[in-house]
Amino acid sequence: MNATTLAYRLHQRDIRAESLLRDCLARIDAREPVVHAWAWLDRDAALAQARLLDDGPVRGVLHGLPVGVKDIMDTCDMPTAYGSPIYAGHRPTLDAASVALTRAAGAVILGKTVTTEFAVFHPGPTTNPHHPGHTPGGSSSGSAAAVADRMVPLAFATQTGGSIIRPAAYCGVVGYKPSFNTLPRAGVKPLADSLDTIGPLARSVADAALFAAGASGYHDLILRNDEAPVRPRVGLCQTWEWEQCEPAQQQALLGSARQLSRAGLALTPLTLPQSFVHLADAQMTVMLRQQFQSLSFERLHHWQELSANLRDILERGAQISDASYWSAMRLIQQCKGQLRDLFRDVDLLLVPSVTGEAPEGLRHTGNPIMNRIWTALHGPALTLPVGTGPKGLPTAVTVVGMEGSDIHFLKAAQTLETMLEHTNYA
Amino acid sequence: MNATTLAYRLHQRDIRAESLLRDCLARIDAREPVVHAWAWLDRDAALAQARLLDDGPVRGVLHGLPVGVKDIMDTCDMPTAYGSPIYAGHRPTLDAASVALTRAAGAVILGKTVTTEFAVFHPGPTTNPHHPGHTPGGSSSGSAAAVADRMVPLAFATQTGGSIIRPAAYCGVVGYKPSFNTLPRAGVKPLADSLDTIGPLARSVADAALFAAGASGYHDLILRNDEAPVRPRVGLCQTWEWEQCEPAQQQALLGSARQLSRAGLALTPLTLPQSFVHLADAQMTVMLRQQFQSLSFERLHHWQELSANLRDILERGAQISDASYWSAMRLIQQCKGQLRDLFRDVDLLLVPSVTGEAPEGLRHTGNPIMNRIWTALHGPALTLPVGTGPKGLPTAVTVVGMEGSDIHFLKAAQTLETMLEHTNYA
Repeated sequence: MNATTLAYRLHQRDIRAESLLRDCLARIDAREPVVHAWAWLDRDAALAQARLLDDGPVRGVLHGLPVGVKDIMDTCDMPTAYGSPIYAGHRPTLDAASVALTRAAGAVILGKTVTTEFAVFHPGPTTNPHHPGHTPGGSSSGSAAAVADRMVPLAFATQTGGSIIRPAAYCGVVGYKPSFNTLPRAGVKPLADSLDTIGPLARSVADAALFAAGASGYHDLILRNDEAPVRPRVGLCQTWEWEQCEPAQQQALLGSARQLSRAGLALTPLTLPQSFVHLADAQMTVMLRQQFQSLSFERLHHWQELSANLRDILERGAQISDASYWSAMRLIQQCKGQLRDLFRDVDLLLVPSVTGEAPEGLRHTGNPIMNRIWTALHGPALTLPVGTGPKGLPTAVTVVGMEGSDIHFLKAAQTLETMLEHTNYA
Repeated sequence: MNATTLAYRLHQRDIRAESLLRDCLARIDAREPVVHAWAWLDRDAALAQARLLDDGPVRGVLHGLPVGVKDIMDTCDMPTAYGSPIYAGHRPTLDAASVALTRAAGAVILGKTVTTEFAVFHPGPTTNPHHPGHTPGGSSSGSAAAVADRMVPLAFATQTGGSIIRPAAYCGVVGYKPSFNTLPRAGVKPLADSLDTIGPLARSVADAALFAAGASGYHDLILRNDEAPVRPRVGLCQTWEWEQCEPAQQQALLGSARQLSRAGLALTPLTLPQSFVHLADAQMTVMLRQQFQSLSFERLHHWQELSANLRDILERGAQISDASYWSAMRLIQQCKGQLRDLFRDVDLLLVPSVTGEAPEGLRHTGNPIMNRIWTALHGPALTLPVGTGPKGLPTAVTVVGMEGSDIHFLKAAQTLETMLEHTNYA
């Protein structure tokens, strides 16, 4: 059952939070030895939370729903290690703001999910639930695997490059990167201030919207059943990174576009302006410089405990001049303006989610190249699973919207979700 | 002596960090009972740091300089209370990134300076060093008072509304709000993610630039003596908030403009576009909503320990709809674009710093209305003291530049600083 249905039944007291949680724990018991999605799990504390909710009034829109929290977010009652040995056993004094809001909305915080080291590249032990020899993607590895494997209906993810969208696509779940600063970042370990975005992993658009509403403290985002569906104008946008996509991803996009056309949506092929050619590089420049700055304490005091890859990344960041940094920021601003112009004619862009199916091996978390530009541009992005590819692993497409249009965006994404159900184009 | 001269002599080993620090401590001993600038001071630890620096190699651009850290920024060796009883005695496990960089550049972290509650409005005990019956401004109250009172040459400030520029103007020091995300925010208690900006308080433009270079980890910002001075084109900009300025502030601006004209600068009167009329309101909308989100843990778990004023602010934030929030964000984006257009014809805008001299009384920290729009627009802003007003308290003018132009901006601001020295127009 999806989170929206569960939430309704929990509100009606049709089902108990405790029994739902026990189902999740049973699934975790069965699968965790292979999937390794969790960095910390406290069954007894979660069961106590659930019983409290069952015995008290309905708390809010997430009442009784079990939620996984990426271990880059502070929690006041669970250790928070940010995927780094430096912080093994670290105990924050407070909950990240989004976690506090999620608890206040009635959710049961089940545990902490595996993140790569400081949400950069060095992976944890998580495997792809569809095939344990393949990466689940990163940096929100544990959250994506846990939701995909039905260990938990909802989990927090964060994205600086492609860490919501990519693991969602690799694991076959809905990943929603809301407009920048929709969910508050207080208490989330900062990586790159101009890019870091918190978002839900879920199993449907409505579930992602419900979770974002609870975690942001604003309920306008919840999708209502009683409204007529939105029929968005869709721009089909291969992006300048198209040639880096494997045939399976290209087919997923083009097949999905054909299906949407057949279902009666207006689809317009769109080419992004020439300035977008260098946008992924600009995102990288900003990310490298801001990562270098944000992780200063760890770089200066814990150098030996950083992975070799992260050390290399931080050293690259140190070299970026003020001129290169602001030139990258200006390009991002310019592209933001051009994107606003494009959104006069379309409501959504349909774009590739990733370069292909989840790569084999657990030492890398895959390539975020298809996501970088959309992170920099700050608008909402949402990944919809569309069947499986030649390796038998999930394929997906991503929809992208205008910054600040999330309510309309989610309704439109739900229309596409319905039209793309039970399809497989790869 | 200013920080730049001190830094040179410390590098040359002409003076010892320890003796400089002892001078600062003597000043603090004499004045702290009246000024109340410090939330925490550890003389012995600071002296030990200074001796280590004297006995070792030159560490970096801030070698041996004593620095005050606003108590909204985490420090690994000093308590960090964020101006709130909730966090009395709180001990973070790491330094804020900017503090870590400042230490690595050789600075002596002398102690923590008084902040208002969570850098919002509820004041601490700090008084204006020019008159103990008047506010020093806020939220960076202790940092501004400490620099103005010559207790320390440099101190950290942060601004979400007007918390760098306003206390700098009230206390008669240079306050520099760099372009957004120039100094890293990791480890600074978040208030409003789209607005929070860290910046230096200092006694000259060169000092502010030197400090920003050390605290950002990038040295491009340091002003060089060997370059020809910049002669900027200046726009004289009364702003739509002009009528809220007292005559003393109006005179400070207009008198400074006349002086710059006489000194040969090209001054152009500029009117901001009509859209800027509602920009201060938009900044308030964004700030209220993001504050409500960022302080979720405290609101949900420590309501009784929040000031009545902050509770009211958080309740107002809870009421802001998604539509109002994004409408405010769009207005800010629009004005950013229009401001970029204005900067085709001028290098700097000369604008009012505050509404007037520091108000009497310590229960309020004064009005940030003259600063709100410039915080939202993300460009550099710097306050230059220009004498005293009718109450005998400092007056100031602010220069504003284009986002990302900080190197050129600081050089240009230095030209104005020289031209406005020894003047008094209020």
